[in-house]
Amino acid sequence: MQQCDTLIVAGWCLPVDNEDSTLRDHAVVITDGCIVDVLPVADARQQYTAGALVERPDHVLIPGLVNAHTHAAMTLFRGFGDDLPLVRWLQESIWPAERRHVSAEMVRDGTRHALAEMLSSGVTCFSDQYFFPEVVAEEADKAHLRAVVATPVFDTQTAWADNATDCLQKGADLHDRYADHALVCTAFAPHSTSVLSDETFAALRVMCDQLDSSVQIHLHESAIELASEVQKTGLRPLERLRRLGMVNSTLLAIHAVHLDEAEIALCADNGVNIVHCPRSNLKLASGIANVTAYQKAGITVGLGTDGAASNNELDLLGEMRSAALLAKAAAADAAALPAPAALRMATLDGARALGLDDKIGSLQKGKWADIACIDLSTLNSQPLYDAASQLVYTAQATQVSDVWVAGRHLVNDGRLRYLDVAEIVSRSGEWRDRITATQAARQETTRAARK
Amino acid sequence: MQQCDTLIVAGWCLPVDNEDSTLRDHAVVITDGCIVDVLPVADARQQYTAGALVERPDHVLIPGLVNAHTHAAMTLFRGFGDDLPLVRWLQESIWPAERRHVSAEMVRDGTRHALAEMLSSGVTCFSDQYFFPEVVAEEADKAHLRAVVATPVFDTQTAWADNATDCLQKGADLHDRYADHALVCTAFAPHSTSVLSDETFAALRVMCDQLDSSVQIHLHESAIELASEVQKTGLRPLERLRRLGMVNSTLLAIHAVHLDEAEIALCADNGVNIVHCPRSNLKLASGIANVTAYQKAGITVGLGTDGAASNNELDLLGEMRSAALLAKAAAADAAALPAPAALRMATLDGARALGLDDKIGSLQKGKWADIACIDLSTLNSQPLYDAASQLVYTAQATQVSDVWVAGRHLVNDGRLRYLDVAEIVSRSGEWRDRITATQAARQETTRAARK
Repeated sequence: MQQCDTLIVAGWCLPVDNEDSTLRDHAVVITDGCIVDVLPVADARQQYTAGALVERPDHVLIPGLVNAHTHAAMTLFRGFGDDLPLVRWLQESIWPAERRHVSAEMVRDGTRHALAEMLSSGVTCFSDQYFFPEVVAEEADKAHLRAVVATPVFDTQTAWADNATDCLQKGADLHDRYADHALVCTAFAPHSTSVLSDETFAALRVMCDQLDSSVQIHLHESAIELASEVQKTGLRPLERLRRLGMVNSTLLAIHAVHLDEAEIALCADNGVNIVHCPRSNLKLASGIANVTAYQKAGITVGLGTDGAASNNELDLLGEMRSAALLAKAAAADAAALPAPAALRMATLDGARALGLDDKIGSLQKGKWADIACIDLSTLNSQPLYDAASQLVYTAQATQVSDVWVAGRHLVNDGRLRYLDVAEIVSRSGEWRDRITATQAARQETTRAARK
Repeated sequence: MQQCDTLIVAGWCLPVDNEDSTLRDHAVVITDGCIVDVLPVADARQQYTAGALVERPDHVLIPGLVNAHTHAAMTLFRGFGDDLPLVRWLQESIWPAERRHVSAEMVRDGTRHALAEMLSSGVTCFSDQYFFPEVVAEEADKAHLRAVVATPVFDTQTAWADNATDCLQKGADLHDRYADHALVCTAFAPHSTSVLSDETFAALRVMCDQLDSSVQIHLHESAIELASEVQKTGLRPLERLRRLGMVNSTLLAIHAVHLDEAEIALCADNGVNIVHCPRSNLKLASGIANVTAYQKAGITVGLGTDGAASNNELDLLGEMRSAALLAKAAAADAAALPAPAALRMATLDGARALGLDDKIGSLQKGKWADIACIDLSTLNSQPLYDAASQLVYTAQATQVSDVWVAGRHLVNDGRLRYLDVAEIVSRSGEWRDRITATQAARQETTRAARK
């Protein structure tokens, strides 16, 4: 008998391997935060003595979900100014609220809310871009989630930085601080081509080369943004980035709803990765990305929720389902993006897009034990013919029973271990009150000025 | 003080009135199964003494959700043959399984599963079309749900009827049996134009006129079906129905994904109602119906899940969210189908499409007390700026705490009162075993025959 830290015994296991296997009655063995074995339950019980035995006979084990794009702190703006046309939503709701309220404290509270919500729904790794990234990194570390914390880069002054040079310096400091961290790594996030000069991109290019850092950017998200950028620069944003030497395997293109065939080929040929945000793309009326075409071209496509202000869920299970359903309509093929491919997008491909696929993204010997466990015994997931299908097309976030990150049991039978939900909800309510009050005051001022 | 049967006190109330009101701290007063008052909590406590007082301070009350199109019994085929192209899915999975397994017993067990699932997720009224409709009606009656039970009409023999004449006779019998029932009413459901002759439609027309019955039919669901029908008959199905005298306010067009401008106008001018099934339309790659265009033309559009074999959820909250999100992409307008309009589609407009809007669909004095109550205090629904937005864009089926149909408290604090979930899941598992076994045997036979 071998000793292990944790033995998880489950009815089904979807390891996301090359064969898209569905393993019945298998166990995952964890020691020192890593997966040391995945084997039939009967064998596991004979071979291993476990410090902790977790038995989930009606459940499926999957690699922890990777939310490859979010703005965690924006959870505090969830549902604030919904159903407005995009430009009014930004100009009348989000931007004024951000100008007035973004602070280290706001980012701390909003991020903590998002972390609790993501963990509860099976997310073990998230990629974030927002102001005060150092606070996001601290919160991820405290909550024991895996994170790619991207430093935002703007030419203009924000609540957090004076200018692009300041952003880059702060990003470099953050990079150094987390260089050897087990869970947190860093990146840079120029918001979009519309807010950065060529000089800033050039400086960013140098910085990223020095630090071996990746770049994530909102790219070709909406037709309006595309048209406006072409009018301003004479170039589509991807082409502008190409000329700036940014189109390579360190580039993560977020949204990428509107890519023509040549652009798809350009991304594929240069190893650009894409993050698909299906629900945000619908809600903001950006469109439906033809992700199966991207995949066919050889592009790695991960999955992201975007921020809760434009989704309004941080629910990667739901996002995975939306991705699978939309792909079928977009490709006019009911066989497009089948359940195992959707699960791969939400796990291994997300990890690959973030450059973490050697560490996470599948249940494989030697990888970190980042694992989610989902109950499939509920009415809506029964009867069960196929675990992958049931997971992708029926499972709700509330069916996530357990989550481990690097072997640490962060959600145990539905209960969060390191985050206080009641306190989080209470503080989010306080922010809602403040944000609502200043909006009311602002609207009153506008009205008075018009009189 | 007046006596009432039930007083429900809630943090928010969305009555679905002409103003799309959001009422804060209101109560709904129920007596003899009907809503007798909707008023501020403080006033309610002064005016009414209640037999039962239900307090839900963190919750929103809405009219019970109306699932305007489903095949309840097909819950037993949930996830059976997913991700196949439409024709293979039908020919290799669903039709052989139906031929082998459809029976009164199967319809009873499958329907009961669906009823439990729909009730748990806030559905108080459903419109069903499947074999053995008399069994569906019995189960709805026993479970105290409101139902429109449509008798299927096929020219060919099925497990349930010999031919179209037999279908019509059985439908007429069912109609008579439930003529005065408080919860169950009936309709006819010719499956689609492809399976019925002109003669059958003529006989159906006479029968519906005699019984004052409505007709629901899968119409213009997929481009493939459209092309095939045009090839066969020289007519698009809607035009064929028009010539047969079926295009009027008793017609409920299910799916209606592909309507051109003239067809939209034809439906609007003749009072045809439509049921939008957004997730099923995605999953089967049928397309995205431009529902805001239908609504602008004046057509009433309800919302349906379709059967669990092609969705795979019977979750009208999720369907409502999908409808709202897809409409924005389809109309290229983030303001399209805002939250209150999506809620209206899932309640009052569904009721109107089914001809029940004088009885249900809004929280209004004199209507039946068909009500759902949803907890908005969960992490994913906080902070709360706007109850309608939070309901439509964040609420999960598991947040439904209570459901009343005609004043009867069918779901109380998350617990179903008249249905045994454990028994339902167990029986569904037995059907899964039988269906899987016969499919395996059939595949074996096919393989042997090929050798």
